This record gives sequence, C-alpha cells and structure tokens, in this order.
Amino acid sequence: MSQSYDNDNVFAKILRGEIPAIKLFEDDHTLAIMDIMPRGDGHCLIIPKAPSRNILDIDLEDLQHVVATVQRLGRAVVKAFEADGLTISQFSEPAGGQVIFHTHFHVLPRFEGVELKPHSGDMADQAVLQEQAVKIKAALGGA
Amino acid sequence: MSQSYDNDNVFAKILRGEIPAIKLFEDDHTLAIMDIMPRGDGHCLIIPKAPSRNILDIDLEDLQHVVATVQRLGRAVVKAFEADGLTISQFSEPAGGQVIFHTHFHVLPRFEGVELKPHSGDMADQAVLQEQAVKIKAALGGA
Repeated sequence: MSQSYDNDNVFAKILRGEIPAIKLFEDDHTLAIMDIMPRGDGHCLIIPKAPSRNILDIDLEDLQHVVATVQRLGRAVVKAFEADGLTISQFSEPAGGQVIFHTHFHVLPRFEGVELKPHSGDMADQAVLQEQAVKIKAALGGA
Repeated sequence: MSQSYDNDNVFAKILRGEIPAIKLFEDDHTLAIMDIMPRGDGHCLIIPKAPSRNILDIDLEDLQHVVATVQRLGRAVVKAFEADGLTISQFSEPAGGQVIFHTHFHVLPRFEGVELKPHSGDMADQAVLQEQAVKIKAALGGA
C-alpha cells in the first residue's frame, strides 16, 4: 500500500506560498490553518512542514511536533468557541478518508447536540472563516 | 470545561490489572489493546499509562509517547489485515464522542467500500478478537 509523495498536493502548495490559506499558527515544524470545507465552526487542520503522505510514512519526530500543535490548537478552539468537547481525526489513504495526500490532523470543536456536517466539499464563506480565525488566534495568544 | 480524572474508569482498572484486556503492545509509557466494541476488524486503542482525561489535559510528553504507539500500531494493523487505509480518532468529552475518561486514541484499519460500524455498544466475540490480536502481534514483531 506504500504510495509516493506528490509535491503538487494542495498543502505542499500552501507551504510554498503558491496558494493562500487562513493561517492560525506556525512554528519551525508545523502549520495550522482553517479548513475551507469545514464540518463545523472552528474546524482547523494541522500539517507538518516536512513532506509526508500520512501517518504511515511520516517521521516520528515530525508526527510528535504535529501532535503538539494539535493539542495547542485543540485547547485554543475549545476556548475560542466555548466548546463542550473536541474531536481529532487523521485519515490515511482514500479508504481511510484521506483526500489531500500530505499528512494532516483535523481538529474540531464540538457542541452538545450538534452533529458534524458531512464532508460535502462545499466551500465556507471566507469572511466567516476569517472571523473564526481571529477568535482562535486570540485564544492562542492568551492560552 | 475542565473536568477531573476519575481513577475508577475502565482503562485505569485495566492498567492496574483489575480487569482483563487483550493486550497488543506495551512500553514504559503506553499500552495498546483491542477495542471490545469494535467498529471494524482490527480496531485497537492506544492509552497512556499516566493518568489524564483526554487531549485537553494530557502532558505533552505523554501525548507524544502515545502518538508513537499509534503510528506503530497503525502500521501493524495495515500489515496484519492488508488494509487499504487507516483512520485515527481521538475524542475529548462527551460532546466530542468520548465514553471512557482516560485519554485514548482509536486506530482503525480501513478497507475500500467498507464503512465503519456504528458505536453500538455490542461486545465482539472474544475468540475473534483473540485471533485478530495474534495477527496484529505477529505484524508488530516483524514490522
């Protein structure tokens, strides 16, 4: 099942600055951005800067950097949206739910009685995502 | 939303040896076991040995140990079941999908065209889980 890494995937392009993204947090090893097809308010994505396809091939050290940023963003979105809980997902290969083939973790604040929206492929309103990003960045700053 | 850790949760009891579990892998910081209410073949759980409720309160170092074991088991279940992909989930608090309040990650091998079963609460046949555990341990040994 081993597959190669394609340098032209969307996240590689974002990392190279070739296409835009709404950035939330960045350190030497990871980047956190808003998901533009969110399954709920505050849905964000954490990606390693180094190339890897998914959890099956990523270097352990990169994975451990990613999970540190997952925790940081998880705490921030719970605070920013006064969420009741948090769901973290990571999908590897199409059968596992993966759509973009650069390792990424989904971080989703959750609310009592609110189901996640299906992954419809609908783009969210950019202004709404920008507003949510402001809230998340404020929560990161004060965390 | 901060909640306290309850020492009488099921995973704490398993870690203390008070109730049985089908163990797959163990190191100084983590334990991997079969999920007894699996959402698919090879569904396993990775837990830290140190007490924590979920990703919101776990020490970063413990979380990084857990994710190392998640990757190890993820690779092993893909190999053991010749899976097409992998789904990793971590749920925090009831709104996030959490049922047992000791940090755990779900590792699920995935197969083309096979949906995950709902979390029904039905216990799997122990003999089937034991057979699956033998396959996973063999894959871990030879990984």
